[in-house]
Amino acid sequence: MKKIAILGSTGSIGTQALDVIAHHPDRFCVTVLSCSRKIDRLCQQIEEFHPQMVVVEQEKDALDLAKKYPDIQVEFGEKGLIGAACGDWDMVLNSLMGIRGMIPTYYGLKAGNDIAFANKETLVAGGELIMNTAAETGQKLLPVDSEHSAIFQCLQGNPQKALRRILLTASGGPFRGFTLKQLAQVTLAQALKHPKWNMGSKITIDSATMMNKGLEVIEAKWLFDVSLDQIQVVVHPQSIVHSAVEYWDGSVIAQMGKPDMRIPISYAFSYPKRLANDYEPLDLFTEGAALTFEKPDMEVFKNIKLAFEASRMGGSYPAALNGANEILVQLFLEGKIRFIDIQNTIERVLNDHKPQYNLDLEGILEADRQARESALTFL
Amino acid sequence: MKKIAILGSTGSIGTQALDVIAHHPDRFCVTVLSCSRKIDRLCQQIEEFHPQMVVVEQEKDALDLAKKYPDIQVEFGEKGLIGAACGDWDMVLNSLMGIRGMIPTYYGLKAGNDIAFANKETLVAGGELIMNTAAETGQKLLPVDSEHSAIFQCLQGNPQKALRRILLTASGGPFRGFTLKQLAQVTLAQALKHPKWNMGSKITIDSATMMNKGLEVIEAKWLFDVSLDQIQVVVHPQSIVHSAVEYWDGSVIAQMGKPDMRIPISYAFSYPKRLANDYEPLDLFTEGAALTFEKPDMEVFKNIKLAFEASRMGGSYPAALNGANEILVQLFLEGKIRFIDIQNTIERVLNDHKPQYNLDLEGILEADRQARESALTFL
Repeated sequence: MKKIAILGSTGSIGTQALDVIAHHPDRFCVTVLSCSRKIDRLCQQIEEFHPQMVVVEQEKDALDLAKKYPDIQVEFGEKGLIGAACGDWDMVLNSLMGIRGMIPTYYGLKAGNDIAFANKETLVAGGELIMNTAAETGQKLLPVDSEHSAIFQCLQGNPQKALRRILLTASGGPFRGFTLKQLAQVTLAQALKHPKWNMGSKITIDSATMMNKGLEVIEAKWLFDVSLDQIQVVVHPQSIVHSAVEYWDGSVIAQMGKPDMRIPISYAFSYPKRLANDYEPLDLFTEGAALTFEKPDMEVFKNIKLAFEASRMGGSYPAALNGANEILVQLFLEGKIRFIDIQNTIERVLNDHKPQYNLDLEGILEADRQARESALTFL
Repeated sequence: MKKIAILGSTGSIGTQALDVIAHHPDRFCVTVLSCSRKIDRLCQQIEEFHPQMVVVEQEKDALDLAKKYPDIQVEFGEKGLIGAACGDWDMVLNSLMGIRGMIPTYYGLKAGNDIAFANKETLVAGGELIMNTAAETGQKLLPVDSEHSAIFQCLQGNPQKALRRILLTASGGPFRGFTLKQLAQVTLAQALKHPKWNMGSKITIDSATMMNKGLEVIEAKWLFDVSLDQIQVVVHPQSIVHSAVEYWDGSVIAQMGKPDMRIPISYAFSYPKRLANDYEPLDLFTEGAALTFEKPDMEVFKNIKLAFEASRMGGSYPAALNGANEILVQLFLEGKIRFIDIQNTIERVLNDHKPQYNLDLEGILEADRQARESALTFL
């Protein structure tokens, strides 16, 4: 029985992770549930999964829950999340949103827990620190993102040094083929409609701006220990090939499947085994009617280029890229800036950034804070 | 330094295998070269690769070669091939054509050699015997066929029991989409033009009749220990996806590449490692412009259905299917029968076949002989 702590259990990944666990009650149990503010949803989950511990954002909610569930340890805030990540479990699923997800991953690794992570900001902003921490503690970082899970699956049974290139696929988002002029006219409602995946609003906007792919490039660089030159972004609108690895003998191994996040979640939970799931299988005869592949347009979707550049410059640049993007997406979601302002402002933040190197956790968070402030000055 | 014996060195696979070896002289050396009658070509190969032993078909050729190369052991005929397969090498590449390829594979395994094999008739006719022999001796059977190499690659790093289905791809050959009526009009020249792969004439005709895929179904059943219901033939005209494996968690792992047989050959030679090759890499942006997938039409291309049926009935049926096919393809290549006669006659041979079970080597060869005779009576 694998004990799993779920950080961010009421979000899209969290609820799908619980669906996986519910289908395999003989293999997994839930030790922690956590959310920000969807308390009603959390209560339903508590009653279904009986965790030992619950973490919420607000102290007030924690007090209410402690009264309602006297047998459960209830914590709140960042300290609560760190405690939840450091418990005596087998695995922590980190599906928190944004840079704050880095903190429990860092402490969870230190405490000796394997981390399944959907929080890509962790490796984007803190790749060096987090990978070093995992190496020191010998804990595993298991990707849940469909692309990184695909790459991870394609690497199994192969020597790392035989990897020549990663082919990181992208749906291209709802604005694939747009010109810069068209991109300037995009509305919030349009940006929230992703053609293939049903996800949270932050990641849906990141997909529309293609910053999602930029962040994934940086994440892949760290997770798979490759250079940026070894990562090729491939626009693949059908979202059937979730990514691929080209080996130096000329062979390309690809992972395919329906766009169902339960598949990569289940692989992270069961790795190196696979679970017997009853999800509808991929039917290449209908869905894969024609699989197509294009180069991304990095002149229009500047975010991909900015992510490559930030990663190449290193130090605090990727944290700045990510911090600026987080605040700008939030402002866009609040209707306060235009879609095109996101990438244009990130570019200005990076141009203006004073880099720091060899950062510890506090240094990364400071770079993030400064980038958010910097972004506001350019609006 | 891996010592490799090449049976069938002047054929398409043999020459490409030598090309692989020539590019990695620090890793591989050639101990045996063998051919039927292309003696001039063989002499060039002898002078380039300096084998210890050479095998040809005819005694007369052997005598000439022994005079020309007094330091090389020269043998001939079936006994020569068996001796070559049983030498003290690390691996035997069996790229012989037809059922006679089974014999050296059988004895080579018994003698303790790993066998890389492109000869699909071996497992079609003698699957049970050969797989049992490999299991008894603990030797490896490494597939060189692009499809089976693809499946083998997609299985690495995964538990065998997690395999749900094999997606065996087929180009569909030059007559994809034809009706039975159109198939009846096909000429030899048309059948010899394969749209994607450059291969020997027997396998090119087998691709055109789709018997090649039928034989591969039977081969996959034995090699990967699956039931026939777990094998789905997928027509994929672009020949970029060389086959795939669907796992029971819903994930599909596919192997892709340019249609270059040196890739699977190099994997069989280097397994479980991969060689650093300088072949032109797959460019999904141009070649994979659109990858499409269709169900095969087994009413027109009856051979696939016949292969499934022969394999389901078991015993000597697959040997009969293969024996009849071999003689009929030969007659078609000689201009003596029509293209459509191949599948129609195989169907009659199978309907008329008196099966034998639990066959030894001699029993398999006898079933093969009888099927050839039977085929002639139906013409």
